[in-house]
Amino acid sequence: MVYKKITLIGRSTESFDDAVDDAVDRAEDTLDNVSWVEVVDQRVGIEGKEDREYQTEVEVAFGLE
Amino acid sequence: MVYKKITLIGRSTESFDDAVDDAVDRAEDTLDNVSWVEVVDQRVGIEGKEDREYQTEVEVAFGLE
Amino acid sequence: MVYKKITLIGRSTESFDDAVDDAVDRAEDTLDNVSWVEVVDQRVGIEGKEDREYQTEVEVAFGLE
Amino acid sequence: MVYKKITLIGRSTESFDDAVDDAVDRAEDTLDNVSWVEVVDQRVGIEGKEDREYQTEVEVAFGLE
Amino acid sequence: MVYKKITLIGRSTESFDDAVDDAVDRAEDTLDNVSWVEVVDQRVGIEGKEDREYQTEVEVAFGLE
Amino acid sequence: MVYKKITLIGRSTESFDDAVDDAVDRAEDTLDNVSWVEVVDQRVGIEGKEDREYQTEVEVAFGLE
Amino acid sequence: MVYKKITLIGRSTESFDDAVDDAVDRAEDTLDNVSWVEVVDQRVGIEGKEDREYQTEVEVAFGLE
Amino acid sequence: MVYKKITLIGRSTESFDDAVDDAVDRAEDTLDNVSWVEVVDQRVGIEGKEDREYQTEVEVAFGLE
Amino acid sequence: MVYKKITLIGRSTESFDDAVDDAVDRAEDTLDNVSWVEVVDQRVGIEGKEDREYQTEVEVAFGLE
Amino acid sequence: MVYKKITLIGRSTESFDDAVDDAVDRAEDTLDNVSWVEVVDQRVGIEGKEDREYQTEVEVAFGLE
Amino acid sequence: MVYKKITLIGRSTESFDDAVDDAVDRAEDTLDNVSWVEVVDQRVGIEGKEDREYQTEVEVAFGLE
Amino acid sequence: MVYKKITLIGRSTESFDDAVDDAVDRAEDTLDNVSWVEVVDQRVGIEGKEDREYQTEVEVAFGLE
Repeated sequence: MVYKKITLIGRSTESFDDAVDDAVDRAEDTLDNVSWVEVVDQRVGIEGKEDREYQTEVEVAFGLE
Repeated sequence: MVYKKITLIGRSTESFDDAVDDAVDRAEDTLDNVSWVEVVDQRVGIEGKEDREYQTEVEVAFGLE
Repeated sequence: MVYKKITLIGRSTESFDDAVDDAVDRAEDTLDNVSWVEVVDQRVGIEGKEDREYQTEVEVAFGLE
Repeated sequence: MVYKKITLIGRSTESFDDAVDDAVDRAEDTLDNVSWVEVVDQRVGIEGKEDREYQTEVEVAFGLE
Repeated sequence: MVYKKITLIGRSTESFDDAVDDAVDRAEDTLDNVSWVEVVDQRVGIEGKEDREYQTEVEVAFGLE
Repeated sequence: MVYKKITLIGRSTESFDDAVDDAVDRAEDTLDNVSWVEVVDQRVGIEGKEDREYQTEVEVAFGLE
Repeated sequence: MVYKKITLIGRSTESFDDAVDDAVDRAEDTLDNVSWVEVVDQRVGIEGKEDREYQTEVEVAFGLE
Repeated sequence: MVYKKITLIGRSTESFDDAVDDAVDRAEDTLDNVSWVEVVDQRVGIEGKEDREYQTEVEVAFGLE
Repeated sequence: MVYKKITLIGRSTESFDDAVDDAVDRAEDTLDNVSWVEVVDQRVGIEGKEDREYQTEVEVAFGLE
Repeated sequence: MVYKKITLIGRSTESFDDAVDDAVDRAEDTLDNVSWVEVVDQRVGIEGKEDREYQTEVEVAFGLE
Repeated sequence: MVYKKITLIGRSTESFDDAVDDAVDRAEDTLDNVSWVEVVDQRVGIEGKEDREYQTEVEVAFGLE
Repeated sequence: MVYKKITLIGRSTESFDDAVDDAVDRAEDTLDNVSWVEVVDQRVGIEGKEDREYQTEVEVAFGLE
C-alpha cells in the first residue's frame, strides 16, 4: 500500500495539542487509513481575534487503497 | 475552520512575481477561501525553451468548508 | 501549464530505488502529465514486519490541464 | 504598516503552552499591535531548578505605527 | 563598529521587490548606518484583502555607533 | 565537566508535554546530572493504536562525571 | 551527459529579477548547454552604494560535453 | 516503552542500500527491539580505498525495556 | 593540501547508485586526487524521457596540487 | 523572567573568537542580565579591507526585568 | 567496520577550539578508534559564570570493533 | 561585476581559524578580486593522522572581470 501525505492546519483557542486534534479529527472525517501525523509548525494568531488562536500545521499520512 | 495547503508551481516568461500570480490565479479558479501563499522555491528554466521561464513554487493555504 | 506537487511514500522489501518506483507507478496510474519526482526522505521499517521494508518519501510533480 | 519581529523566550513550570503565553503576555504589556507569534524552539531546563522549566522561544510580530 | 540586525516585514500590493523597499525605507527613516538587507521569507496575503498583498520578511543590518 | 547528549522518544496518549516528561523521567531513572532537554520532533501515531499516541523526540543533555 | 553546477551572484540597481538575468547572461556568455538556474539567496547592498543594489545568488546548471 | 536513537554509519563496496543493511545488521546484533531506521547522509569514500566505498549514515530507533 | 569541491549531477536509467557512479566516473576522468563524494539531492526525470531517469546531485571533493 | 534575544555581528582582525568577544562586550555595555550567546554565522571580509576581518554573527540572550 | 557517532559538548574559558579539544580528549579517554569530529553548535555561557565559557557541541565518530 | 563562489577546505594542525587562512591564502594565490568568505563546516580529522587536523570548509566569493 502506497501512503499519501496532505498538509492541514488545525486551530484552537485552548492549546497546540487541541489544534492538532482539530486537524486529525478533520482528516479522519474524510479519509480512510489515517496512519500518522507530523507537526511542522506552531503559531498563535492574535490580531483581529477575540482570543489567542493556537494554530498547528501538520502533515497527515494515510494509506491509499 | 481547518486550513489545507497544496503545492503549485506557477510559470512565466516575464518575472518571478508573475509566476506567483500564475499559480494563485489557478488556485482561485478551482478553490474557495484561498487565504495566503508562501514562496518555497524560485528557478529559471532555460534548456529547450525559447525564452527564459521563471518558475515559482508556492504553498497555497485555503479554508476547508 | 501550472504544475502541482503531491507527497507519496512508496514501499518495497527490495530496495529504496524499488520503493521510489512503487510511488511513481501509483502516481502514473492515477495522474496525467507526471513530470518529475524529488526524494524527500528514506526510512527502513523493521518492527512488526517479516522483512525489512524500504520506505521512500517523494514529491511527485505533474502538469494541471 | 510595516511589521517588526522580536524574539522572546517564555518560561513556565507548567507546560510549553503556558511558556508561550508567558512570552505573549510580556509582549502585549509593552507593545501595541501584536499580530502573531511563531514557535521557534522548545527546551526543558532541569539543572539547578527545583521543578522542570518549560522554555518556549517565539518570534513575536507587531505592527509599527 | 559592531553591527545589529532587526527583522522587518514590508508590504505592497505591487510586488515583492516593492515590499522590500517598504521595509528598507522604514529602516532608513529611523536608523543610521543601514548597511545591508537579507530576504528571509516571501508570502502573499489574500484573505480579507482587497488586493493581493506581497509581504517580504527581511533582516536589516546596521552599524551601532 | 563535558556534557553528552542522547536522543529519546517519549510517548503518551495524553499530550506532547506528557510525552516529553515520559522521556525525561526515563533519562533521570538511569542517568546522573541530567541538565536540559531540547524538543526535536513531534508526531502522533494512529494506525494500529487504540488511542492517538503523542510521540515527542528529545535530545537529553547530561554531565559526564 | 553529466551536468555541473556553479554559483554566481548577479547584481542590479533595478530589481532581484534583473539581478538573476545579470548572472544568467554572464553564464551564457562563457558556458554552453546552460540548462536551469536555482535562486539560493537574495540581498540588498546599501552601505557605500549610491543606489540600493539588488544581489541574487544563483546556482547555474549546465551540461558537460 | 520509551524509544532511543543511536547514529551508525554502514559501509559497503556494493551500494548505498547494502551500506544501510551493514548498519542495521550491526544494530540487530547488539540491540533488542530495533524498530525503524532513518537515512541521514550518503557519501562515497575514494581516497586511499581500493574500491569506491558507499557510506550511509543512519539513525536507528529501538525500544528500551 | 587544500581540497576543492565541485557539484555534479550524474544520470542513469538504471538506479540512483548508478547515477552516482556516472558523476564520479566523469570527475575521475578530468580531476586528480578525487577524495570523497557527498550526495546532495536525488530526483527522477520523467516528462519527455523514454525511460525514468535517475538523477543524483553530488559534491565531489578533490585535493589541489 | 522572560528572556529576549538580539542579533549582533562582532568584528576583529585577529580571530573569530575575538569577534565573538567584540559582540558580547558591546552587549554587556548596554544590557543587564546577559545570559548566553549562540554563534549563527562566521564570515571573513576581504574586499576593501587592509587586513582580513573575521565577522561572527551571534544571538545574545538576556533577561528582561 | 561500522562507525558510531555520539554527541558531546566540550567547554573552555579560553576558546571554541579549546572546547573542541576538551570534548575530543574525553572521547579518546574512553573510546577506541576515534576517527573524526564534526562541529554542530557553538555557544558562550555567561549567566552564573565567573568567566565566559565557550561551549562547542560536536559529533564524534569512532569505529566499532 | 558578477561574483562567483567556489568551495574550498583549508586544513591546519593549529586551529580552525588557521584552516580558514589556509583556504583563503590558496584562493588569493590563484584568483583576483577575492571579496569575502563564508564558513560552511568545521571538522577535525583524527584517524590516520599524527596530530589532530582542523578542517574548515568555506565558500570563497570573488569578482569576475
